[in-house]
Amino acid sequence: MVMANGQLAIEDLVARAGDAAGLATTLARCHPADAIEVLNRVPLGQAAAILLQQSAAVNAQLFNHPGLDAPAKLVNLLPADRAVEVMNELHTDRQVELLRHMNDKEQEALCGKLPAPVQETVRQLLAYPPSRAGGIMTTEFMSLPSAMTVAAALDAIRKVAGSKETIYAIYLLDPEEKTLAGVVSLRELIMADPSAKLADIAVVRKPVTVTADTDREEVGRLISKYDLLAVPVIDETRHVIGIVTVDDVIDAMVEASTEDAQKFGGMEALDQPYMAMSFWAMIKKRAGWLCVLFLSEMLTASAMQTYEAELEKAVVLTLFIPLIMSSGGNSGSQATSLIIRALALRELRLSDWWRILIREIPAGLTLGAILGVIGIVRIALWQKMGIYNYGDHWELIALTVGAALVGIVTFGSMAGSMLPFALKRLGFDPASASAPFVATLVDVTGLVIYFTIAWVILKGTLL
Amino acid sequence: MVMANGQLAIEDLVARAGDAAGLATTLARCHPADAIEVLNRVPLGQAAAILLQQSAAVNAQLFNHPGLDAPAKLVNLLPADRAVEVMNELHTDRQVELLRHMNDKEQEALCGKLPAPVQETVRQLLAYPPSRAGGIMTTEFMSLPSAMTVAAALDAIRKVAGSKETIYAIYLLDPEEKTLAGVVSLRELIMADPSAKLADIAVVRKPVTVTADTDREEVGRLISKYDLLAVPVIDETRHVIGIVTVDDVIDAMVEASTEDAQKFGGMEALDQPYMAMSFWAMIKKRAGWLCVLFLSEMLTASAMQTYEAELEKAVVLTLFIPLIMSSGGNSGSQATSLIIRALALRELRLSDWWRILIREIPAGLTLGAILGVIGIVRIALWQKMGIYNYGDHWELIALTVGAALVGIVTFGSMAGSMLPFALKRLGFDPASASAPFVATLVDVTGLVIYFTIAWVILKGTLL
Repeated sequence: MVMANGQLAIEDLVARAGDAAGLATTLARCHPADAIEVLNRVPLGQAAAILLQQSAAVNAQLFNHPGLDAPAKLVNLLPADRAVEVMNELHTDRQVELLRHMNDKEQEALCGKLPAPVQETVRQLLAYPPSRAGGIMTTEFMSLPSAMTVAAALDAIRKVAGSKETIYAIYLLDPEEKTLAGVVSLRELIMADPSAKLADIAVVRKPVTVTADTDREEVGRLISKYDLLAVPVIDETRHVIGIVTVDDVIDAMVEASTEDAQKFGGMEALDQPYMAMSFWAMIKKRAGWLCVLFLSEMLTASAMQTYEAELEKAVVLTLFIPLIMSSGGNSGSQATSLIIRALALRELRLSDWWRILIREIPAGLTLGAILGVIGIVRIALWQKMGIYNYGDHWELIALTVGAALVGIVTFGSMAGSMLPFALKRLGFDPASASAPFVATLVDVTGLVIYFTIAWVILKGTLL
Repeated sequence: MVMANGQLAIEDLVARAGDAAGLATTLARCHPADAIEVLNRVPLGQAAAILLQQSAAVNAQLFNHPGLDAPAKLVNLLPADRAVEVMNELHTDRQVELLRHMNDKEQEALCGKLPAPVQETVRQLLAYPPSRAGGIMTTEFMSLPSAMTVAAALDAIRKVAGSKETIYAIYLLDPEEKTLAGVVSLRELIMADPSAKLADIAVVRKPVTVTADTDREEVGRLISKYDLLAVPVIDETRHVIGIVTVDDVIDAMVEASTEDAQKFGGMEALDQPYMAMSFWAMIKKRAGWLCVLFLSEMLTASAMQTYEAELEKAVVLTLFIPLIMSSGGNSGSQATSLIIRALALRELRLSDWWRILIREIPAGLTLGAILGVIGIVRIALWQKMGIYNYGDHWELIALTVGAALVGIVTFGSMAGSMLPFALKRLGFDPASASAPFVATLVDVTGLVIYFTIAWVILKGTLL
């Protein structure tokens, strides 16, 4: 059953889903993450039946992990008294997350049955949006008066460790004001002289902190930048109201990557797994941008209408429209993905836009020249080999295509690299600059560039 | 100088770069992450001058952090004896990373001056590729015989904690075979009865392990799934040869997101910051895919050549080519980004392809119908309002455009969602399925769909 790597043969367990009691015993012995993988793969009703066969403590271990696909639905499928029992054993950040995924009625029903102090904390935390530090923090952190000795601190930690989400970061409070006075890590504590005062072993520099209002991506950036296991959330009076731990941040980072990838694909972020989403909800997330892009792209039809006379005179020009326009879109898409990431990683700031521009213009010219040469060679080859006859002026047509490629690829690189800056400047998320967005932007201008170049080169001959 | 948030006014410090001695003193008091931000923003020569004014121990703190943009170049700018002194104080994983970014000559010069045992370890680790667990692991982990008592273990940890990268995970070794027998966390150790044996407090289940050969993204997935602070790397004989810690994984995850975003943008991953990359190296990374896409997109020109007779009879059809083709590419790009992420997060497996297909076909039909209606309305409006005259058969043209949109958007959703599966099935990275790749795939087929529908609807009238 257990594979070489310590992971379980999930498939085998899923196949046993009918035997709730037997599977419950097996899963209780597995790592919670493996048990969760099995529960995610069986129908919700069966998953709830399995949970019911386990103790509330084992259930709580599972619900404390972030991996369950539909934890809120599962809690609601449990009998009310068991649901309350499990909720009571969860870390506050998980309690809040579960309640957040219930409708108002379910939330009220479950929340109302929790002990009064838990209820109060949970209701406070529910008020913070989940995209902010306040919405993902936990209130179960380890804090001690800074005047305590190391030996006394270790004793105190030993006693309460079980109920804290992490004990690796210990927050020192001013004995009088109870405000944040410093941070020590459990590692520093272990290495320190037992008779030393906590205040004396804490790092002298001010601890890194966030407020309840800090964006969760910024929290992730700080934790990663300063190599922290947790970051304290403080209020205006420097009282610690909670902490955000590194595992929450990893989850938040994975979610953010998914959102960015979906946005770059040209749609709204789904916010839930693809298969868990209802058909119409998914259509809604996709149709919006698709319509906006469609309406913008209609400008290409309008642009082409104005060139109708040219098109009728030289139908041969239409053959290259998709080729030339897509090349502009592709180079734009490359530039946009580069700049979005560089902005997200803070490698670039808004004021760097001109440095990018003076790099992207020669890049676009070079890439356009490469494609232009390939395009000209292709037309010459087809003409000489007799595969297709582009007419008497085929050299001029080849020249038009080559020159248009240089112009459009350069414009694509410029537009693609500047779009994220422009969005950021206007207060939008630079990650809204999707590949289809850039392609649409470049398509309309691309047509104008193509026909202008054609007019210049072919005037008097074909046009 | 210090801002409300505990972070420094980086700009002010950068402005003082000329005064190496003064700035060195200030930076030595900052959090290493802040000092690094300043060093990254001043010219390399000045950064090296500042480092020289600090102690080797402070230098080591900076080099142990992952944030420096060009750490290898900086080490090479230091005098040889200082460089060796700093290298000696670094964690092995950082030593290896620095050496990896030097050319063979520099690497040999520096490596040769390290103490023999360090040299041996480093040379062994350098043999692993950086994309594998062996290439990012550190050999400074905490291991103890499983027969030791908790009290003795805490004593042992206290003595060596300073030289280990993490002491939060302690690996228990079989007293005879020295193979991995279990894991305890420092937290469990602190909470345990001091007279208990380590073997008795360790979790009974087999610890999660990886081999030196495990892909670093898989390591990240395991650390995140099992909520670990570190994962042990074992060899065939179950001896622990190193550990990968959560902070390395966060860095690896950020890098992986960047690579995926760049690949989805239609290029090779850059592997280094945009501004740090040389112009020609960047062109190389972009030109490859751009040429492949261009050559594939040439098929659109070939396709249009075969429809030249139709085009000459009905130039009006060309007006909608960019509009219709881009819509197919956009819906394909949406579907691809959805599926790439779902595969990366293991929400979907290869065998799920048909479940996606039976979801994407109705999704494509619905989205296509929405765009089709908009397209028909637009043509009717322009015709009725006299903005443009599409000719006597404008209703048939509108119908052609509407039907083509349904067909092409559906085909785009299908092709876009199946492409990552196909790539994975063929052994490629599903993330190579970029937005431009999908758009190109859809463009050629889109033209065929458009002209086929036009032929069916307009035969006998326009065609």
